[in-house]
Amino acid sequence: MLDIPKNLSLVSRRTRSSVIREMLSQTLSGDIISLAGGLPAPETFPKKAVAEIIGSILGRDSDAAFQYGPTEGMPELRQAICDDLRASEGIDAGPENILVTSASQQALDLTGRTFIDAGDPVLVELPSYLGALQVFGACGADMRGVRSDEDGMLPDDLGEKLAALARGEEHYKFVYIVPDFQNPTGVTLSDDRRGRIAELASEYNCLVVEDTPYRQVRFAGKASPMIYARRRGPNVISLFTFSKTLFPGFRLGFVLADAGIISRMARMKQSLDLCSASFTQLIVARYMNSGEYTRHLPEITAVYRRKKDVMTQALARHMPSGEGIRWTDPQGGLFLWVTLPPAIDTGAMLREAAANGVSYVPGMPFHCDGSGANTLRLNFSYPSEAELEEGIKRLAATVKKRLSAK
Amino acid sequence: MLDIPKNLSLVSRRTRSSVIREMLSQTLSGDIISLAGGLPAPETFPKKAVAEIIGSILGRDSDAAFQYGPTEGMPELRQAICDDLRASEGIDAGPENILVTSASQQALDLTGRTFIDAGDPVLVELPSYLGALQVFGACGADMRGVRSDEDGMLPDDLGEKLAALARGEEHYKFVYIVPDFQNPTGVTLSDDRRGRIAELASEYNCLVVEDTPYRQVRFAGKASPMIYARRRGPNVISLFTFSKTLFPGFRLGFVLADAGIISRMARMKQSLDLCSASFTQLIVARYMNSGEYTRHLPEITAVYRRKKDVMTQALARHMPSGEGIRWTDPQGGLFLWVTLPPAIDTGAMLREAAANGVSYVPGMPFHCDGSGANTLRLNFSYPSEAELEEGIKRLAATVKKRLSAK
Repeated sequence: MLDIPKNLSLVSRRTRSSVIREMLSQTLSGDIISLAGGLPAPETFPKKAVAEIIGSILGRDSDAAFQYGPTEGMPELRQAICDDLRASEGIDAGPENILVTSASQQALDLTGRTFIDAGDPVLVELPSYLGALQVFGACGADMRGVRSDEDGMLPDDLGEKLAALARGEEHYKFVYIVPDFQNPTGVTLSDDRRGRIAELASEYNCLVVEDTPYRQVRFAGKASPMIYARRRGPNVISLFTFSKTLFPGFRLGFVLADAGIISRMARMKQSLDLCSASFTQLIVARYMNSGEYTRHLPEITAVYRRKKDVMTQALARHMPSGEGIRWTDPQGGLFLWVTLPPAIDTGAMLREAAANGVSYVPGMPFHCDGSGANTLRLNFSYPSEAELEEGIKRLAATVKKRLSAK
Repeated sequence: MLDIPKNLSLVSRRTRSSVIREMLSQTLSGDIISLAGGLPAPETFPKKAVAEIIGSILGRDSDAAFQYGPTEGMPELRQAICDDLRASEGIDAGPENILVTSASQQALDLTGRTFIDAGDPVLVELPSYLGALQVFGACGADMRGVRSDEDGMLPDDLGEKLAALARGEEHYKFVYIVPDFQNPTGVTLSDDRRGRIAELASEYNCLVVEDTPYRQVRFAGKASPMIYARRRGPNVISLFTFSKTLFPGFRLGFVLADAGIISRMARMKQSLDLCSASFTQLIVARYMNSGEYTRHLPEITAVYRRKKDVMTQALARHMPSGEGIRWTDPQGGLFLWVTLPPAIDTGAMLREAAANGVSYVPGMPFHCDGSGANTLRLNFSYPSEAELEEGIKRLAATVKKRLSAK
């Protein structure tokens, strides 16, 4: 009889199932309010506009929509992306700088496979996005955590880590950063730090991978220019997705980078899936060209602003004060981050929370160094306002019980 | 300045651009009839039926269609696939045996990454599908070619190769086969050989990866049961795609395998792209459930039968006879295979062919051992009947010129 585990590759054995995924499967049944997920709000999906565009494509362009397309992406979409980058970010890019991907998880996988050899040091925030840690881990990266605070990654700590790697003559590949409303913390990298990180990347000749899934979902404050806009060479790769500005069900995103990097990543993508879906690419291209994409963003951010307010107000109302309990107050995105007293292990507390009818994601898996046991991630985009209020109430009751049990 | 090549991973450096891709880019311009591609015929796309289904999904189920879905695939599609497998193949599978993929190239990538470590021997047909060789090569496979003839892979040669690997205590992983109307040859594995290959896989405790992109596009003869239907344990993995039975523009396919293998591959897929597009999955599920999927197949095969006939008749009419020139006469699929006299190098002849206004894919890249220099692949699904006739005329003139130049 075939022994399956004995046949598995090292990459497969290194690929761990996501903690979020396990959580979701546990909390799917029963009367549990999930603050654990990361789904966008369905009420923000621009159904009508998209339905009209689909109608027009099926009427006139179905041959192209239903056929294979170029690996790099449909020309119409790559051009629409360049137009949007110029208008919204002041970034001057041509189609040769754009690779359409099957959303940003594929962009992360492409990045990992294009640049990481097993054992290569890769620098990530503490904490960082779980899906990226999963991909880089599968590639065999030796992940080094860089400390962060309320203004994002600490350039001094990054500088020290890069200097140590350079002194040790180690073969480091890139720094991975989610600069805007980070998953999991909701924190945004300050303008000053963006500049310093671009400088460090240039000084140490190292790539920066800038992952921006939430950048356009800003509901307060003012955007700082992207790290890409401050690059001093070909060494910034920026990842985008349409999952939060449109919806996730098309699985589309793109990479913005130097043409030489794009052509290498395109060669890799060809082996991964030949091309992304022509049909949905054409829909997104027409949606962008219609102007609806830009017009629709304020409708999304209005929903998220309100939901974030409901969550932070509920936290202020219900969470015990003092004892070092605090949470972030993001200006965009889908998540906020709660820090509990050091004695509380949010992984161990999860069972009690589920018994109380609420779930969240424990913070430790987001930390490549195993720290963060007293932290947790909350999602405010998907639950209804009533669920947010009730969910936080249940979470606060769970925390109070833990505190009193000590 | 960043030195991009110095930063590339070994996997990236091993990932070669497909010869077909390079060819396509060369032959896109000018008055060249391309017999090199592998595109399905747009006139077979069931536009009207799909448009109706899309209308109904947008009307009622857009929340699910636009949201993230499970990594394994939308439950409705997995069930529809099981129903179809039972009806069309007599295969009894449950949703736990199905993993929806972003078409069969992603299934190949998942297979390679799940099972291949660098240096692992993998057994492939001589010749074999280029996209698979590309993926397995990027994974670092040590590919061993197994000889084949007009009835597909030779079980005796496979048995000898497996015995040699077993004697050498080598760590072989799987045999990769395209049993139906193979790409590139158009050849179908005989019923008897399917049974013997299943036996060998069981005897040597080795996986068989059965890739079936063309299986349902049969326009003549009678199908032999799949190798999967003859498995004697969990050791057959079958790959399917909707690219030829529906159209490629949705990028959807699936893997059929033992539940333990599916769960491992699903974990890997989570890291690759989280999930395939919910929207297009729902469309395909409804299309299958409507009965249109089965009803529409004869319309596709009628088109391909006619085009194949046009190509083989043109070959008989125009190609020089004798000198060992021969071609396959497939009962389905998109391709046929031409063998020229040993002295003709089809790679070297390509420039002359292009000058004569026709292109094809030279056969050598399909051979992992570098043989096959006198072979070439022709596509009959995409060109019009007039182009097929004229393209073969131009190809025959090129061959004649080569022969007379010797």
